[in-house]
Amino acid sequence: MACGPAPDANVEKGVAQVVAAVGRGATVVCLPELFRTQYFCQSEDHAMFDEAEPIPGPTTERFAAVAKEHRVTLFVPVFERRSAGVYHNATAVLGPDGTLLGRYRKMHIPDDPQFYEKFYFTPGDLGFPTFPVHGGRTGVLICWDQWYPEPARLEALAGAELVFYPTAIGWHPHEKAEFGAAAHDAWETVQRAHAIANGMYVAVPNRVGAEHADVRGHRTDGPGLEFWGASFVADPFGRVIAKASHDREELLLAEVDPREVELVRQHWPFLRDRRIDAYGPITHRWLDPP
Amino acid sequence: MACGPAPDANVEKGVAQVVAAVGRGATVVCLPELFRTQYFCQSEDHAMFDEAEPIPGPTTERFAAVAKEHRVTLFVPVFERRSAGVYHNATAVLGPDGTLLGRYRKMHIPDDPQFYEKFYFTPGDLGFPTFPVHGGRTGVLICWDQWYPEPARLEALAGAELVFYPTAIGWHPHEKAEFGAAAHDAWETVQRAHAIANGMYVAVPNRVGAEHADVRGHRTDGPGLEFWGASFVADPFGRVIAKASHDREELLLAEVDPREVELVRQHWPFLRDRRIDAYGPITHRWLDPP
Repeated sequence: MACGPAPDANVEKGVAQVVAAVGRGATVVCLPELFRTQYFCQSEDHAMFDEAEPIPGPTTERFAAVAKEHRVTLFVPVFERRSAGVYHNATAVLGPDGTLLGRYRKMHIPDDPQFYEKFYFTPGDLGFPTFPVHGGRTGVLICWDQWYPEPARLEALAGAELVFYPTAIGWHPHEKAEFGAAAHDAWETVQRAHAIANGMYVAVPNRVGAEHADVRGHRTDGPGLEFWGASFVADPFGRVIAKASHDREELLLAEVDPREVELVRQHWPFLRDRRIDAYGPITHRWLDPP
Repeated sequence: MACGPAPDANVEKGVAQVVAAVGRGATVVCLPELFRTQYFCQSEDHAMFDEAEPIPGPTTERFAAVAKEHRVTLFVPVFERRSAGVYHNATAVLGPDGTLLGRYRKMHIPDDPQFYEKFYFTPGDLGFPTFPVHGGRTGVLICWDQWYPEPARLEALAGAELVFYPTAIGWHPHEKAEFGAAAHDAWETVQRAHAIANGMYVAVPNRVGAEHADVRGHRTDGPGLEFWGASFVADPFGRVIAKASHDREELLLAEVDPREVELVRQHWPFLRDRRIDAYGPITHRWLDPP
């Protein structure tokens, strides 16, 4: 999805895309991270907090009506206002009857040039939940989480057969020529590996387009970002079964079969042999050498 | 490396390869898993326990002399006899003065058709150590460990800038046509992801060749295994910087630069943002749904 300066227009585009996806057979849909606005974290700007909204709130109410009308499960990223001073990068989960099944609050918050998320987002405090979808369980993590094996593993242990990663990642224009291909490849590789290591589907909707963080005409100076699209779905053995382009808006559809999760985990029984007696030090920041 | 029926000949071939590697500039060398014999775990055969030996023992003593003579650090896989009834799939680490720096005992033990390792190998009890190499630290994990994100992470947290994965993995001949390419790709992908997620080098020496587990003329009936070679080295951003063929013996050399570890971790600061407060459930077998 490409996101424009007008939040309401982005919401209505998202609604139209959901309806189009349903028309092509989708029963579960996930939108990209923070799709309601351009990616405002390119700068640290207090005015942007005015874009935050509660859950439930206007955006989730709009999509709840769509979910109910079309009997579709929706994963809807929201810049969540939880309280004065407490804002989250979140995703609301809406069941096919329009009820709010729950929410995920991004746990790993990046902070890099033009990705100043630590300024805006309080780290999540809901852990790594999964949600009931079609008799199984589906999880959602957000963008920077995608580089970490721990949340992917915890989603699998919590029953996820499918994990969505709504994302807003792209190239710094001045780095694209030298590092662009390697960065994109690493991003796809690390998430395919979550599918492999856990025997589950991974689905990653990203945004496309060059942005200067234009929110209602309020732009960020500087080189901007080029979001690299390339949304994809990997099966439980890490094979990419659907993939979008780098530069065009697309509906990306894939079939997800829980029997494939069972089959892959029988043939590659990694979960059987985990050394849970020896993993405790993973909760340490660093293990100083003896 | 291809492994023949005569254990002594495999040891001497390994010695010759180490010396050749040193001649081409190597200062650290790792041999493939259980290289002293063909891969005997294709069947469950009590006679094979006679191939186990202590550490230190004949194989490590032979390589310790080589290490000292050539001032090279060696990672030497050994079928370790620790006691009557306690055998490990291990790797000994020998410093450039010939001293035994320590050992790793394979923590994750597979058991699949023709990979009956649970019959032979007691699971390791030394955790995930790293060893001092060239002023930094290097770790070693073994084969099945390579599918798990936890040991890779624990190696990184214990200071590893490089992790070796001595390996014996291959195709079941009857599955190769349908699943062979996907299996190999998943194997390479999940290990490249360990490099990416942890900002460290990963180096994977595998064996090549079709085997019927011929140990001193004592063969296993059945279809055998075709070990897929394709040893490789990935840099801290997951780029494959050296790669061997599927079917030929090769010395695979790569340059490993600790400054690259530092640089990649500065630009992709994943270790900074780990949510160690939320990873505790990773020590659970499964998280039953609410």
